[in-house]
Amino acid sequence: MIVISISNYLKSRKEAIDSILPTFIEQLNAPKTLKDSMLYSLNAGGKRLRPVLLLAVLHSYGKQEELGYRTACAVEMVHTYSLIHDDLPCMDDDDLRRGKPTNHKVFGEAIAVLAGDGLLTESFRVIADCNQLSDPVKIKLIAELSKAAGAEGMVGGQTADMEGENKTISLEELEYIHEHKTAKLLEFSIVAGAIIAGATEEEIKKLRVFAHHFGIAFQIRDDILDVEGDEKKIGKPVGSDQDNHKTTYISLLSLQEAKKKLAEHIAKSKAALQGCSMNTELLSSLCDFVGKRDF
Amino acid sequence: MIVISISNYLKSRKEAIDSILPTFIEQLNAPKTLKDSMLYSLNAGGKRLRPVLLLAVLHSYGKQEELGYRTACAVEMVHTYSLIHDDLPCMDDDDLRRGKPTNHKVFGEAIAVLAGDGLLTESFRVIADCNQLSDPVKIKLIAELSKAAGAEGMVGGQTADMEGENKTISLEELEYIHEHKTAKLLEFSIVAGAIIAGATEEEIKKLRVFAHHFGIAFQIRDDILDVEGDEKKIGKPVGSDQDNHKTTYISLLSLQEAKKKLAEHIAKSKAALQGCSMNTELLSSLCDFVGKRDF
Repeated sequence: MIVISISNYLKSRKEAIDSILPTFIEQLNAPKTLKDSMLYSLNAGGKRLRPVLLLAVLHSYGKQEELGYRTACAVEMVHTYSLIHDDLPCMDDDDLRRGKPTNHKVFGEAIAVLAGDGLLTESFRVIADCNQLSDPVKIKLIAELSKAAGAEGMVGGQTADMEGENKTISLEELEYIHEHKTAKLLEFSIVAGAIIAGATEEEIKKLRVFAHHFGIAFQIRDDILDVEGDEKKIGKPVGSDQDNHKTTYISLLSLQEAKKKLAEHIAKSKAALQGCSMNTELLSSLCDFVGKRDF
Repeated sequence: MIVISISNYLKSRKEAIDSILPTFIEQLNAPKTLKDSMLYSLNAGGKRLRPVLLLAVLHSYGKQEELGYRTACAVEMVHTYSLIHDDLPCMDDDDLRRGKPTNHKVFGEAIAVLAGDGLLTESFRVIADCNQLSDPVKIKLIAELSKAAGAEGMVGGQTADMEGENKTISLEELEYIHEHKTAKLLEFSIVAGAIIAGATEEEIKKLRVFAHHFGIAFQIRDDILDVEGDEKKIGKPVGSDQDNHKTTYISLLSLQEAKKKLAEHIAKSKAALQGCSMNTELLSSLCDFVGKRDF
């Protein structure tokens, strides 16, 4: 029953985001190639997990999810910019993303760099121009987003990832990379929902612990899917991490140990929700979904 | 007398910015290579014209310039990120900037892209975390900065510049590029000073006209310096625009006509200051400086 309702929730919120997200770019008075390139990657699909998490937190606090739409779109724009830049020849040099040619393969490297720069910059504008939130709330959101996405967050994680390429890294280094490259932006989504809902600092502290374990669990599941996932569902060849000599939870710990670690993080994540004032059912279900997801 | 005092003003404010700017990066808990790369370009010098303009507007309104320090540093971070990305092999492919090896020549392309991404992201954080300004003022600044730097501003201008490469463009297209690639961020600096000073909307409107002509004048002077400047002072070989078959005001209009156009924009810029409630002497002198500068 929960499994059906969570997949319905994910589907309906993904559809809402899919329909709103492009409008922020379509309305821009900017060169056509740039807008096309930004829209190409924004519309390339994906689970929209970050926006959905933000909306789910608002839902759990009994607040109108519409209040979070712009911030949800902003975090997806930041996520999309990071994918465009990560795929560049000087970074991971990927030709395919979600089964489609990567941005620079279609628009060239210069436009891909600029589309990423544009999405990152516009993400802050989408929050700043929101007329449904107060200025103090918007400033908190922008402070959190810039920290999560910047040198102490995602950009720092991607730097460590680049520096760890083609060499064996320790579990500690691997956790630094995932904590910063992936978990920080997921944490932002959860914290942003709580900020918009007007949650207390104490409550937000608990949600950060929830988000930390949620983010690591998300990444371990990613590594597991690379070994035993379905190519069509995950949108890339199974075994690509091993082929690229990438250090993963599996290469460091074995598949069995990685699954054990995943279960531990899911349990810790759900435990962190205890004592929160919200209805924790939806976030708890999202946690289970992340642990079992097949895409 | 004015010439001496304006050069003293420029020098002292440049020194203030030079000393504060690196602290925002030094204090970050982030990978060393990333911080080194961000600092390398931030500390590579330059006139610090954008920060100085912002401080000059505050000065002209009789306000404490210290109120603008963080925003002044933020705009310099955005300017620096744009230089790092513009120099990349997939963009202008420049090996030297201000007489020093470009960022990617020292740190490699991947780190250069990330240093740019980091500087852009942190710039918004530097404003959001400012405790000397109110939240409504900070939101106005972030809305203006993201618009000036994004797809409708600087990123749009760089896109048009890339698309115009290796072909002859019209004067209209050249003006679009400079208006967006250069003038929008200069305009931000001026408007940001006015926002912090609490200027009226009507006053800000006048300052936008001032800033527009100031920005175009700045760019025309740049084109003139490329023809008749001193290599040591401008930090790049004289005649490089012509060697790179770049369309400039000179190639489209002749040197003499470009100088005439420069004088027109300086005059219009100064005229726009009339009727402003501030003491306009300093901005007027900055205008003259931009028209005559030799670096």
